[in-house]
Amino acid sequence: MKLGIAYYPEHEQPEQWDVDYGKLAAAGIRSVRIGEFAWTVLEPRDGQFEWGWLDAAIERAAAHGINVVLCTPTACPPIWLVEKHPDVLPVNKQGRAIGFGARQHRSYSSDHYVLHALRIVNRMAERYGDHPSVVAWQLDNEFGGETKYDFSEGARNAFHRWLEERYGTIEALNERWGTTFWSQRYERFGQIPLPAPIGADVHMWHHPSLELDFARFSSGSMVRFASLQAASLRPFIGERPITTNAFMFCWGDNLNWPDLFADLDVVGMDIYSNKPHEIAFYADACRGVLGKPFWMMEYGTGTTELERDMQIVRERGCSRFYLFKMKPFPWGQEQGGGKPELVTLTGEPSRNYGIVRSYAAKYAGEAELTETERAGVGLYYHFDSSWSYQLAVADRIAYPDYIVHNVYRHLYEAGVGTEVVYTANQLNGLRTLFVPLHQIYDAVLEERLIAFVQEGGKLIITSDLFRKNGDNVYLRTVPRLFFELLGWQENNFPGDAVAEASVLIRRHKSSKGETWLVHRGATEEQWKEIIAGIIE
Amino acid sequence: MKLGIAYYPEHEQPEQWDVDYGKLAAAGIRSVRIGEFAWTVLEPRDGQFEWGWLDAAIERAAAHGINVVLCTPTACPPIWLVEKHPDVLPVNKQGRAIGFGARQHRSYSSDHYVLHALRIVNRMAERYGDHPSVVAWQLDNEFGGETKYDFSEGARNAFHRWLEERYGTIEALNERWGTTFWSQRYERFGQIPLPAPIGADVHMWHHPSLELDFARFSSGSMVRFASLQAASLRPFIGERPITTNAFMFCWGDNLNWPDLFADLDVVGMDIYSNKPHEIAFYADACRGVLGKPFWMMEYGTGTTELERDMQIVRERGCSRFYLFKMKPFPWGQEQGGGKPELVTLTGEPSRNYGIVRSYAAKYAGEAELTETERAGVGLYYHFDSSWSYQLAVADRIAYPDYIVHNVYRHLYEAGVGTEVVYTANQLNGLRTLFVPLHQIYDAVLEERLIAFVQEGGKLIITSDLFRKNGDNVYLRTVPRLFFELLGWQENNFPGDAVAEASVLIRRHKSSKGETWLVHRGATEEQWKEIIAGIIE
Amino acid sequence: MKLGIAYYPEHEQPEQWDVDYGKLAAAGIRSVRIGEFAWTVLEPRDGQFEWGWLDAAIERAAAHGINVVLCTPTACPPIWLVEKHPDVLPVNKQGRAIGFGARQHRSYSSDHYVLHALRIVNRMAERYGDHPSVVAWQLDNEFGGETKYDFSEGARNAFHRWLEERYGTIEALNERWGTTFWSQRYERFGQIPLPAPIGADVHMWHHPSLELDFARFSSGSMVRFASLQAASLRPFIGERPITTNAFMFCWGDNLNWPDLFADLDVVGMDIYSNKPHEIAFYADACRGVLGKPFWMMEYGTGTTELERDMQIVRERGCSRFYLFKMKPFPWGQEQGGGKPELVTLTGEPSRNYGIVRSYAAKYAGEAELTETERAGVGLYYHFDSSWSYQLAVADRIAYPDYIVHNVYRHLYEAGVGTEVVYTANQLNGLRTLFVPLHQIYDAVLEERLIAFVQEGGKLIITSDLFRKNGDNVYLRTVPRLFFELLGWQENNFPGDAVAEASVLIRRHKSSKGETWLVHRGATEEQWKEIIAGIIE
Repeated sequence: MKLGIAYYPEHEQPEQWDVDYGKLAAAGIRSVRIGEFAWTVLEPRDGQFEWGWLDAAIERAAAHGINVVLCTPTACPPIWLVEKHPDVLPVNKQGRAIGFGARQHRSYSSDHYVLHALRIVNRMAERYGDHPSVVAWQLDNEFGGETKYDFSEGARNAFHRWLEERYGTIEALNERWGTTFWSQRYERFGQIPLPAPIGADVHMWHHPSLELDFARFSSGSMVRFASLQAASLRPFIGERPITTNAFMFCWGDNLNWPDLFADLDVVGMDIYSNKPHEIAFYADACRGVLGKPFWMMEYGTGTTELERDMQIVRERGCSRFYLFKMKPFPWGQEQGGGKPELVTLTGEPSRNYGIVRSYAAKYAGEAELTETERAGVGLYYHFDSSWSYQLAVADRIAYPDYIVHNVYRHLYEAGVGTEVVYTANQLNGLRTLFVPLHQIYDAVLEERLIAFVQEGGKLIITSDLFRKNGDNVYLRTVPRLFFELLGWQENNFPGDAVAEASVLIRRHKSSKGETWLVHRGATEEQWKEIIAGIIE
Repeated sequence: MKLGIAYYPEHEQPEQWDVDYGKLAAAGIRSVRIGEFAWTVLEPRDGQFEWGWLDAAIERAAAHGINVVLCTPTACPPIWLVEKHPDVLPVNKQGRAIGFGARQHRSYSSDHYVLHALRIVNRMAERYGDHPSVVAWQLDNEFGGETKYDFSEGARNAFHRWLEERYGTIEALNERWGTTFWSQRYERFGQIPLPAPIGADVHMWHHPSLELDFARFSSGSMVRFASLQAASLRPFIGERPITTNAFMFCWGDNLNWPDLFADLDVVGMDIYSNKPHEIAFYADACRGVLGKPFWMMEYGTGTTELERDMQIVRERGCSRFYLFKMKPFPWGQEQGGGKPELVTLTGEPSRNYGIVRSYAAKYAGEAELTETERAGVGLYYHFDSSWSYQLAVADRIAYPDYIVHNVYRHLYEAGVGTEVVYTANQLNGLRTLFVPLHQIYDAVLEERLIAFVQEGGKLIITSDLFRKNGDNVYLRTVPRLFFELLGWQENNFPGDAVAEASVLIRRHKSSKGETWLVHRGATEEQWKEIIAGIIE
Repeated sequence: MKLGIAYYPEHEQPEQWDVDYGKLAAAGIRSVRIGEFAWTVLEPRDGQFEWGWLDAAIERAAAHGINVVLCTPTACPPIWLVEKHPDVLPVNKQGRAIGFGARQHRSYSSDHYVLHALRIVNRMAERYGDHPSVVAWQLDNEFGGETKYDFSEGARNAFHRWLEERYGTIEALNERWGTTFWSQRYERFGQIPLPAPIGADVHMWHHPSLELDFARFSSGSMVRFASLQAASLRPFIGERPITTNAFMFCWGDNLNWPDLFADLDVVGMDIYSNKPHEIAFYADACRGVLGKPFWMMEYGTGTTELERDMQIVRERGCSRFYLFKMKPFPWGQEQGGGKPELVTLTGEPSRNYGIVRSYAAKYAGEAELTETERAGVGLYYHFDSSWSYQLAVADRIAYPDYIVHNVYRHLYEAGVGTEVVYTANQLNGLRTLFVPLHQIYDAVLEERLIAFVQEGGKLIITSDLFRKNGDNVYLRTVPRLFFELLGWQENNFPGDAVAEASVLIRRHKSSKGETWLVHRGATEEQWKEIIAGIIE
């Protein structure tokens, strides 16, 4: 696992660069991640680019034997762009433009934003694409981190086009959503509201099919923007890999990872946690997307158990490990005083400086990891089901927490290596598969699960499996999987008919395999017991 | 008690109707409540009505021996109306229009809304008014359920007219409200704001006289709209009764029941509770308004103690009992999966299906209840006092909870039959009367209470009785009731002068009767003890 | 300590005045504070003044031997001014105008507001400036009480001018704030946003330098307005003192007291508390500003321990003590029923009436206090540091609570007389000085603290001392005070380098004095112990 760190040359006087690079090199750090929020200093005025400082900062790094992951700076449009084109700003669910002054103040549905962002990406690609020191690219920063949903006019129009593409006719949408309920029928796509709060005196919410589709559209808008950036880079960067830094699902899993990384080369993410099982889960979740080593793009330098945490992600296929960040920021929203990073505010080495240096020394000769082994136990993560649960009102479940803490934790603590899988075609090689809370029906997956058990697999599902179709509407017939795998004979869903005495509703052998049906309300403790019974 | 159920023919394919009606008839259910939210399918375009499906749905019900309570569908204006006349939408207290996409998105002060609503009511009345299967009408659905207060320009203008009617001159309003306080004097009614949040950095609120009047105006707007609907129906429906489905006070008692039901024929309401004393209270509250049997318009079919609950309301004068609803909705805001109604999502009978069938079989020959007996103990519910307390800031009391849980509960649990009364002229026949938290002075009631005790009644009042006048302003002289009934000699209110050792501040015999003065802060436990001492 | 009380002649019929003044005089109260919210009755229409009632009310007071503190009525602009000039209303952080109907609905940055306010102040000064009964003036009421920050267009423009004056050029601002962070660089002052909520889906906040400067600007706007009022009065009132009624820091210390009172003659404040140490703190805080007796402008008449509380403030230099208020308001936002003031709603004397009368009788002959003694122990209160902490997100500390409850309380309970000091030039005569949470660097104070210890003083500081510069940016070098007073040799801040075993990080003698370095996270209990060790 190679070490790197976030560094902000634009925050320093040029004469400081050599001092800082020297300290990094002395610690054994040979890579910096730079440029992430530098739009305003790269393009201080519309169309006027200033590359000199970045040329020099990269050159000085190289002089210290430090290479560069260059970030596109698109997460923070400069004031001149916002002022000239106010539609660049996204609009929040209360209908107010998200103000300038922080970050992620950009609407993925604003043509002005997208065009200006792609222009600077293109210019950076032209200039640094074949630079020998620039070894990889990171797109943007934490897509969808602060601004998850955009209620602007531009987003509304784009959503209408998205719906038209999905449903074809408004009659089909009305039929599939069931808009006869509460007289919600639409005559044209253009009438469909965005799911901003209804605003009644008593809590009242939007139609669940609308909510789920808007979540899909929002994720898709970000994926499309990422893919456009990647396409802008490709012609200039040769074989250099492109990644981005996704963040933890518990802060909002509003961006569909398999979609996002389909056009990228490496999975990259930021983990901020002090819970070993949570760190391990996200490492497994990263490796699972593309089934190969991943990069940690941010890991808190000041964390208290750095050595342990590096070991956890290293064992799970992390091939490059970027700390965030070299030193505390004295100013700005992330300013910090008392808590040191690699060095303190006055530039003194911190406790973790020593840990990093030891690690680097120990593994200096190690080759970069290029492939990973596959575990025999799988855990399915399904974004649509997660959104369906998190957007619900009466039936809300914190899906990411359930997956990580109710289920994954016990596998981790029992020492079971786990693959996180996202699609039906990732089940190869698994002998045991957990599919909790997969509420949304998927015909391909249904066939695959039946085959999985028939071939001898152990399958663990929950009582809500396939309760809803892809439009977030409850099914009115029981899918054949229940008969095939559980020997279920009733014309009714398990949860409707059975007064369960135990959260393990049924355990059934069929063909060469076996299926466990667990009540979706099973607690962390109950899952612990169930899992112990399966993996023993 | 006759059984009925909510059914939505517009949610089904016509071929399903016979299946569903068959299951209802087999359970002994002979009445369906339909049409509640069907505006968009009855009038899919402005002025174009489609009656065919409803004709057929009523006809098929009749074929199964099932009659119909027809609901006016006015709670959900269709998208074409909202799009054409945006003033149809009410505005919430933050100043935002309440969006299309849920229900109750209608301003009672919008002429466009009222005219279109009355048009479809009128057309339904013409078509179904003398239909032999249509045995009664329900107005709208839960008036004021989600949208309690409307801060639209239309509402503001209507409120100004309402104030002018109440006060005559702005000088009178200034004088009665005491607007000299904080320099709030108005020059014209048109200057008076609606009591939307002030929005200061520190919580700051509106003038209490303005708040109470706006609550009265808001209730009045709904009452006026209900009365207009009733008047539209009358010429066409002969003797068929009109009701509506009011809801529980604990969800907002913002609609004055005696006013609402004054122009209707039967009190109807929706109860969702699993507390026996709460169910009983609302049954008594229903019977009390018109002093005769009432209808349960919605009772949760999936409730866990259906048999017990049916008995509670039956004993208290419920003559028709409509369950809500036949089956779970697969889509829309009220979608439900695991919890069955009369049947499950796949159409299988639920546990309560059997309970309903047994009940229907047992009471099949019973005649419909036409009158009720009067209990000897009364409990006064006063909407103005309730609003005065609930709109207050420093002095807020959850009036409905106090009435139901602090006071009524102990009467119920002691097995005391109770009349809920609302006006001074409903005291006849009572021997004991509880008047808790009646903060607003009422001269007629004062005379009536004095007479009540003089004639031998037991009267229980709280220390805040008649502390404020009808403008929500504290009185500065002590009403004579305190002298007459409590022998109170001081030129001061009890609560101001006495350091109470007990929450039973005073107990005083006068003439043939007796009066108990209880501190308004008495807890549930303290009320239990006091009530035990009175009813023993 | 002379007694007075708030009275509202405009709330009463003139024939009531003699009754009320009679009761006051009988209690020994010889002064009333009047006029506070009377704008609408003094100027019922734009430019039309009505003085008759006020002339008479003052005259009747004089007839009972009662003099008057006259208040400028500017906290509540009348409806005619608001209607004519909507920019009079401030705008809250959600972007909505703060509505008419309560109080403090005025933007200090609105020219229309300021001009109309100064006009009525001027006219009152002309009429009553040399009135023999008008013995002092109170400006406005609780500046910044409800409306602390104004996000109006007028405020934004004024803030831009304020910034320009502070920073000179936008380049200087960018440099000092560090706006390269997150690409926040500005090209012109006119682009800088007000720190209204960003409004992102995940909590995101503004730049801390912007936040602190906006707090300073907001305080400065109020100070400027107060100074303009004082300047309007001076030519007409001779030597009569001017004060205002500031409020407790725990409700928002958003107004810099030394700035506010620099142009006034007496410190006046309102205390509402039942905690002896809190009452004592604010009394000491009042005396400390100008180093002389202060006035209590409001003290709750209905408080439960009036005798004790009067003694606490009397001992700390209160020379005039105004109760709030004579009687409960029957109407309006502050209406009150059950809780008596000096008299009840019906005009009966309350328990505290007797206490007041006894006090007045006992001290009738006492001369007014004109100077105060100085205590030997000081406690530093620093508004900039307080704001810096309270506006922070990650690092938020409730500064006023910390000062009052963590530190001051133990001095009070140990019987140690304490001076509250606000500036470096107020240290004379102190032997012990507490400077907790003084996060913002101050070069003058640094020199003064070094000298203080060298001259033999005991100095108690916290670990965050001087961590940030005046732009709310962390320092990157350790100020020399740490070397001089603590013998600190490291090129790093104490908190960054030391893993503290105790909250008393270091205790160090230097020259004739001694310094205690306490961790800023010390709890109330830990402070108690530390303080016990210092003052023994």
